[in-house]
Amino acid sequence: MASRHIITLLSDFGTQDIYVAAMKGTIARVNPDLQLIDLTHQIPAQNIAAGRFCLLSAYPYFPVNTVHVAVVDPGVGSRRRAVAVQFPEGFVVAPDNGLISGILTLSPVLAAVELTNSNYWRVPDPSLTFHGRDIFAPVGAHLASGVPLADLGESINPASLVELPISQYQETTTGIEGYIQYIDRFGNLVTNIPAAAVENQQQWSLLVGRQSLSHGYTYADTQPGSIVALVGSHGWVEIAVNRGSARSLLRLNYGDPVQIAFR
Amino acid sequence: MASRHIITLLSDFGTQDIYVAAMKGTIARVNPDLQLIDLTHQIPAQNIAAGRFCLLSAYPYFPVNTVHVAVVDPGVGSRRRAVAVQFPEGFVVAPDNGLISGILTLSPVLAAVELTNSNYWRVPDPSLTFHGRDIFAPVGAHLASGVPLADLGESINPASLVELPISQYQETTTGIEGYIQYIDRFGNLVTNIPAAAVENQQQWSLLVGRQSLSHGYTYADTQPGSIVALVGSHGWVEIAVNRGSARSLLRLNYGDPVQIAFR
Amino acid sequence: MASRHIITLLSDFGTQDIYVAAMKGTIARVNPDLQLIDLTHQIPAQNIAAGRFCLLSAYPYFPVNTVHVAVVDPGVGSRRRAVAVQFPEGFVVAPDNGLISGILTLSPVLAAVELTNSNYWRVPDPSLTFHGRDIFAPVGAHLASGVPLADLGESINPASLVELPISQYQETTTGIEGYIQYIDRFGNLVTNIPAAAVENQQQWSLLVGRQSLSHGYTYADTQPGSIVALVGSHGWVEIAVNRGSARSLLRLNYGDPVQIAFR
Repeated sequence: MASRHIITLLSDFGTQDIYVAAMKGTIARVNPDLQLIDLTHQIPAQNIAAGRFCLLSAYPYFPVNTVHVAVVDPGVGSRRRAVAVQFPEGFVVAPDNGLISGILTLSPVLAAVELTNSNYWRVPDPSLTFHGRDIFAPVGAHLASGVPLADLGESINPASLVELPISQYQETTTGIEGYIQYIDRFGNLVTNIPAAAVENQQQWSLLVGRQSLSHGYTYADTQPGSIVALVGSHGWVEIAVNRGSARSLLRLNYGDPVQIAFR
Repeated sequence: MASRHIITLLSDFGTQDIYVAAMKGTIARVNPDLQLIDLTHQIPAQNIAAGRFCLLSAYPYFPVNTVHVAVVDPGVGSRRRAVAVQFPEGFVVAPDNGLISGILTLSPVLAAVELTNSNYWRVPDPSLTFHGRDIFAPVGAHLASGVPLADLGESINPASLVELPISQYQETTTGIEGYIQYIDRFGNLVTNIPAAAVENQQQWSLLVGRQSLSHGYTYADTQPGSIVALVGSHGWVEIAVNRGSARSLLRLNYGDPVQIAFR
Repeated sequence: MASRHIITLLSDFGTQDIYVAAMKGTIARVNPDLQLIDLTHQIPAQNIAAGRFCLLSAYPYFPVNTVHVAVVDPGVGSRRRAVAVQFPEGFVVAPDNGLISGILTLSPVLAAVELTNSNYWRVPDPSLTFHGRDIFAPVGAHLASGVPLADLGESINPASLVELPISQYQETTTGIEGYIQYIDRFGNLVTNIPAAAVENQQQWSLLVGRQSLSHGYTYADTQPGSIVALVGSHGWVEIAVNRGSARSLLRLNYGDPVQIAFR
């Protein structure tokens, strides 16, 4: 229990408005002693794929039994389910729209429920437009305070959780085909090709558009302004520019294809 | 007392500089065990009306006896008063420039003081330009730590607290006249017409410029890109665009008029 | 020890990605009871001088024995050292690239070590691109939890810590020559001329480009839109515009020269 009192928040609400604060106040009303940590609230509006990537990328670093409340929810008010899922490394409370699907590819589900028990909501009659405040935040706070998962609603089949149509990377006879799955603040381009896919290769280069990028190990390996492909800190093959933006230099965006060529 | 150890911060300082951090450090020096929660620091610079709206919108979600420190303070260094006000739902520590006036319209004042007791300031001779750090933050920290309100300074008449000239919505023979009082990050346009003003109407539409918008219940009620008027999560009539920005689509701004027509 | 459980974070990682969250999760794994406070994560990318200024400006406001983890680290993965330094007012854990050099000019060093003991890292084989998560955050968490500085690595000579080539202001026969060392969110221009250099002068004015600015005491001293030179809340001579941006009005940037003329 000692490590269970951390609750994280991820959303596309930004930090300009008080949407996030309303969630935090609601959590504090349930239990003022929980430790609140923001994952990010800068997910591009309603971009479930970006939310999925950020949630997937952050959760391994937190203590076991941390509760992650994730709200990127374009279908709020429609019939999409609200769920809580228990993984070995912690809990996720979120709309069932694919946000959780990144973690699903890496971790077994220990248990999953639909959030049907309104006793743990902020109010029995929640807002049609803000389930983050009225359902996800208070449910997460109760869960982080020791309420059993099974009390939050009816058990559901983990296989029924929504998957996103994010295509996997493909191995070919000469290398790997993948694509850009995330772009960070520095303009680093994160592909969907994991470190494991290249770590046994003596030599590889990354092809993007008409360019062939040799691979390096650190940003400092290269001259300022030059482009390098490397296994980034997220654990994926990334394209980076020492002291610059790969996004701007290569004019690439989410979903653009990349290829790795082995030698 | 159990729920009194939360202190929130609202300002127009942004998060780029260390102004907010200086306030938090000052609070931690008074009492490192307080729980710090940001409402927002992205209030447009010196926009008291926007700060008023955000403070009003966030405070109902927090535990009773939370201390809210709010600093949007274009008159810092001039003769405007620094005050602390006790409401049934919590305390506000702020410049007396209208920031509190939104809460004043909704809640009775239990007590109010001018912050004249420099024993609770960071230093007896505060900066002329940064009362957030030198007066509001430490006073808020002492208040959240159990110092009685009356010790912070001289009692003042609640009726003397500064009101903002924010006009009220008007009921007409055919509907309601109001205006845009806030614009959130998604570009949703928040009017000053409360839910209560329309909830007994069978049918209503919202007129803005030359457009008549029918009312819906959720963003998902409409096709992506279409405009809907609804009672938003803040509790006011809002104009929203499913997966888009009403601000951009309608080219509206703070203060622009809107009308509701009953049928 | 009571006040030692605060750990602050400063970086150029921004708040869009989960880099900061990964650091916070790592800290929480070491000790979930530490209080996390952000100084800022909006340092311009790889701008060591701006990071130096913000760290220098924030640390005096925190409780003694606070641990400040600062990561602006363009040389990550190269041979630059990772260090922890003890000052009378607290600890700094950072790359040895000049980030700490502002504090060095003001405070004596009580002890300094290179972070060579990998027992306190997140993993013995850290990422080549993200020492913030793998070295600085966990080391800071251990330090804030009571691990002695000397256990973190080998003692180093404080005189060997990297200084930045930030030139000092110069006193001349008629005044002072300095430059813009920081620009805040409001567009206030912070010079490198400290309050102490002007506080005994009866009259002074500030020359910038072809303009001569008289000095004031508060933003409210002037008409909206007019320019004033004053000793700002940071403790340096600043150029500000009441309800406006000095940066935009004067078209000045980092490093631009200013002069003070005494009378």
